[in-house]
Amino acid sequence: MRLKKIPYAYKYLKEHKQVIILDEVLSQQKNFTLTPPCECNHIELEIGCGKGDFIIKKAKMHPEIYFIALEKYDSVLLRAVEKLEQDEGKINNLLFVLGDAKDLSNFFNNQKLQKIYLNFSDPWPKKRHEKRRLSYPQKLFLYQEILEDDGKIAIKTDNAKFFAYTIEKLSQSGWVVEECSVDLYQDKQYAEVRVFQTEYEKKFVKRNMPIYYCLAELKNEKK
Amino acid sequence: MRLKKIPYAYKYLKEHKQVIILDEVLSQQKNFTLTPPCECNHIELEIGCGKGDFIIKKAKMHPEIYFIALEKYDSVLLRAVEKLEQDEGKINNLLFVLGDAKDLSNFFNNQKLQKIYLNFSDPWPKKRHEKRRLSYPQKLFLYQEILEDDGKIAIKTDNAKFFAYTIEKLSQSGWVVEECSVDLYQDKQYAEVRVFQTEYEKKFVKRNMPIYYCLAELKNEKK
Repeated sequence: MRLKKIPYAYKYLKEHKQVIILDEVLSQQKNFTLTPPCECNHIELEIGCGKGDFIIKKAKMHPEIYFIALEKYDSVLLRAVEKLEQDEGKINNLLFVLGDAKDLSNFFNNQKLQKIYLNFSDPWPKKRHEKRRLSYPQKLFLYQEILEDDGKIAIKTDNAKFFAYTIEKLSQSGWVVEECSVDLYQDKQYAEVRVFQTEYEKKFVKRNMPIYYCLAELKNEKK
Repeated sequence: MRLKKIPYAYKYLKEHKQVIILDEVLSQQKNFTLTPPCECNHIELEIGCGKGDFIIKKAKMHPEIYFIALEKYDSVLLRAVEKLEQDEGKINNLLFVLGDAKDLSNFFNNQKLQKIYLNFSDPWPKKRHEKRRLSYPQKLFLYQEILEDDGKIAIKTDNAKFFAYTIEKLSQSGWVVEECSVDLYQDKQYAEVRVFQTEYEKKFVKRNMPIYYCLAELKNEKK
């Protein structure tokens, strides 16, 4: 996500009722428990929600699910929250979290999720940055910790190498690839996956670039 | 493989010392044992060798490995054997087999292989032909039977849907994807894989089409 620093972003987010600042929550309460305001026992999380297009549409179309959207950069998250505002408080099943993926297991210590989305994550192409990739094995292990036994992870990317790396690491870490596409916009069977687009995705599709997609499920080991 | 029927193909193959007609062998000897003419205890098999470019180059560059190349169509296999002839009997570590993949487990009943190659297999795109795909789960199980415990399968294809299907089925059948590329000719790390090209591959690369590749290994279950 290209960044244009917005000076008032942090303050705005801190005061917004649908935003949590992860660092602050974790420093104040060691045993923080997330309490969804709606009667949802199905929780889905997007890691790196960017400007929020994907998750806001998800929340609108699935009021039965509680969505959490994590974003590292306040100036980016501000744009997502502004979009939420356009719906004048009608979307109650969505919570934005400003923070880093590495702290997620502390945040969800009493809660299990059904699904995690990684959309167009930073590919960190250099080998020395491998640990920063959101599909690095240690990160996959972290997701395993906060997911239900039959939890799923859904990944979309435009980056061929990041996708191939992700398939390898998922497979090597005991996940089963349930769905796979190396050209999402040419695969009839994934029409529903295409309904929820990120800002990046819209641009890439216009340029006719292939979009890679997979859905993986945790294997028996935890079951 | 597009077919031009060559009337003398079958007879020619039947009389060639480096060709086995699978049907005949299986009907004559129930317990056929393959005896590699060289001192190789490492055997690799290509299923659907087409006109033989890939496997002949492999055999030339790896005299320490014994290669077996299976092809269903006699008129196609004839072209491969003719190429072998150009080397005037110098390639002794290669055996061609005319036959169908489904009979492989009978053929290799006393032998275990180290690696199987599926190169640009017919994708059989229609759902009703799924069973014919070389990565259909029952076929993968057959490969498992004839491979060593740490046996590998290497797949190259130009077909996006066949590749995605293959990744799913490998993953769901207990194989681990060790290597993956959704654009083989852009991946520096797989330079060695690109050395051995099939006839199809050469054409596709000229047209700048992406080539998909994966290398999968059997999982612990057998170990």
